[in-house]
Amino acid sequence: MQELPQDLLQEIQSIEPRSAEWRARAQSHLDQLTKPQGSLGRLEEVAADLVSMQRAAHPSCAGKAVYVFAGDHGVTDEGVSAYPREVTVQMVLNFLHGGAAVNALAKAAGADVVVVDVGVAGELAPAPGLLQANVRRGTRNFAVEPAMTYEETFAAMRVGTRLAQEAARDGRRVLAIGEMGIGNTTSASALTVAITAAEPDEVTGAGTGVDETGRQKKAAVVRRALRLHRLRLGDVAGVLACLGGYEIAAMAGMAIGAARNRIAVVVDGFISTAAAAIAFVLAPHTRDYMFAGHASQEPGHRVLLDYLGLKPLLSLDMRLGEGSGAVLAFGILEAAVRVYNEMATFASAGVSQKSE
Amino acid sequence: MQELPQDLLQEIQSIEPRSAEWRARAQSHLDQLTKPQGSLGRLEEVAADLVSMQRAAHPSCAGKAVYVFAGDHGVTDEGVSAYPREVTVQMVLNFLHGGAAVNALAKAAGADVVVVDVGVAGELAPAPGLLQANVRRGTRNFAVEPAMTYEETFAAMRVGTRLAQEAARDGRRVLAIGEMGIGNTTSASALTVAITAAEPDEVTGAGTGVDETGRQKKAAVVRRALRLHRLRLGDVAGVLACLGGYEIAAMAGMAIGAARNRIAVVVDGFISTAAAAIAFVLAPHTRDYMFAGHASQEPGHRVLLDYLGLKPLLSLDMRLGEGSGAVLAFGILEAAVRVYNEMATFASAGVSQKSE
Repeated sequence: MQELPQDLLQEIQSIEPRSAEWRARAQSHLDQLTKPQGSLGRLEEVAADLVSMQRAAHPSCAGKAVYVFAGDHGVTDEGVSAYPREVTVQMVLNFLHGGAAVNALAKAAGADVVVVDVGVAGELAPAPGLLQANVRRGTRNFAVEPAMTYEETFAAMRVGTRLAQEAARDGRRVLAIGEMGIGNTTSASALTVAITAAEPDEVTGAGTGVDETGRQKKAAVVRRALRLHRLRLGDVAGVLACLGGYEIAAMAGMAIGAARNRIAVVVDGFISTAAAAIAFVLAPHTRDYMFAGHASQEPGHRVLLDYLGLKPLLSLDMRLGEGSGAVLAFGILEAAVRVYNEMATFASAGVSQKSE
Repeated sequence: MQELPQDLLQEIQSIEPRSAEWRARAQSHLDQLTKPQGSLGRLEEVAADLVSMQRAAHPSCAGKAVYVFAGDHGVTDEGVSAYPREVTVQMVLNFLHGGAAVNALAKAAGADVVVVDVGVAGELAPAPGLLQANVRRGTRNFAVEPAMTYEETFAAMRVGTRLAQEAARDGRRVLAIGEMGIGNTTSASALTVAITAAEPDEVTGAGTGVDETGRQKKAAVVRRALRLHRLRLGDVAGVLACLGGYEIAAMAGMAIGAARNRIAVVVDGFISTAAAAIAFVLAPHTRDYMFAGHASQEPGHRVLLDYLGLKPLLSLDMRLGEGSGAVLAFGILEAAVRVYNEMATFASAGVSQKSE
């Protein structure tokens, strides 16, 4: 078992739980607004969550941004994906040119897109909107050897904690963690099995679109890898190093860094939630700062959400990744904030209260 | 049985179904965008729906607006609501001052709020944002007599068709139908029983917040009214006149007028959906232009959505009305339009397609 390095341990130890006191204040404010109590349902919960994270009278979604962490996976050597590996680089360029789904959705949400090369197996020229933090040009094939060394794993996590720190400095209050990496649903399936003890078959889906034969092949690769590495969840850094990807480690790091800076994190689909689960095992209070953006069609996603105890805000049969579902859910957070900050109270509007 | 007047019949006869040809074109476009086919789930369906309604290469949400139709209900004499009747007028003033939930949510969505007095039982001074089209100062108590005359019913429906026509002229492509009216969940429950043959107890909920005793009283009032009026669904105008409200008739009229003008209508919660169901019975192709914004907590809402065959876009445990859930769902429509119009294709972005 490998201890986390001191700097990452310090990040984790600095995370404070959400404030119960601020939550009570939020509830009292919500109950004075001109609507039957509780009638805005989860919007009220989201607003109270944000207040209890931010410990502020006026919750805020300022500086909304989606971080798309890109990395390649050696396990594609096993033929687990419907798309060739070079699509990772091609899609990074598509993000930078504004042509991907996450770009359109971020524009609709008024959010920034930050693309982070943390492990792409190809050359990327410097470009506006691209953060170059490549740890290695793709992971090793986890079906035959550990995907990453411990040092690489911690380096990738530090990319996430550092970006969260910079986001805090820039006044960002809400982040989404998204990803791009051909082969990474196989990695997420393996991580899900290691974390939740689910059956490989139960948490392995079609990914970008393999058929049933391909899906069974993926599940077999996952099964083989878990036999090979003999993991123990007590050594979660080892689990992440053996099965994970650079983008997954970076997202886990961002979940830790965000919690430490009282920034809300909207988790996206299967891979993003696998990273959130890693962060949760390392630092349970990271969950206090998480929202589940949506319920993806990947079967393992539901298993991870149940493990984390998170209830998705949206359920629109999406399965794309890139942070797309999380960015769409920014709209729900924004709505919750507006309701909380802008609605009149019964007293201020002169509206009669419920008869007793 | 009362025939509809000629002008309303003409509106209905002018409604065209959605275009299957445009829908096929939309699907072909969606399949060329840089994402695995179908991976944006219901966002793709919404985009294709809009294209097939609007028969245009680029779907649009231009001029998004929520119409909040306000009306009072004589059935409040039976003590069916948790709030006093004067709250209808007070909340109209709150809408006009921008202090209600629908105002905050509309601002977040970039949508206009239009408040329509179609049957409020009180004096309202002219104000910016208020459309004065009062048919009568509240309905009669439908537990003892028909709520509206046929002439009043048609007059209220014409308020909706006229506003839809004006919205079309102003270039609005998406409308939400919302309402305010103390007592109107009781009216919606009675309409739901008449339309779907559900049990009164099954479709009567807490409304703005009555307790279980109050809920049972509401259900008893509904049961009594249905025995009294001896309605037949073949005479849907009669059903609406006996049990409905001015705001419900106006929303039904707007659903008809919008469909006739190829404008999408986002239906809100229980009362709004009761109006949509009336429109559907009168003119089945109105449904081609409807989206269900959300699943409300009112038990009758699910019954109506099933009857209409509409699947809600959001499910956030809301139960407020005002169009609040529909306005929140504008964000999903906007996102679908952006994805459709702004994403790059595999060819234009130079991204490799799925391997065969």
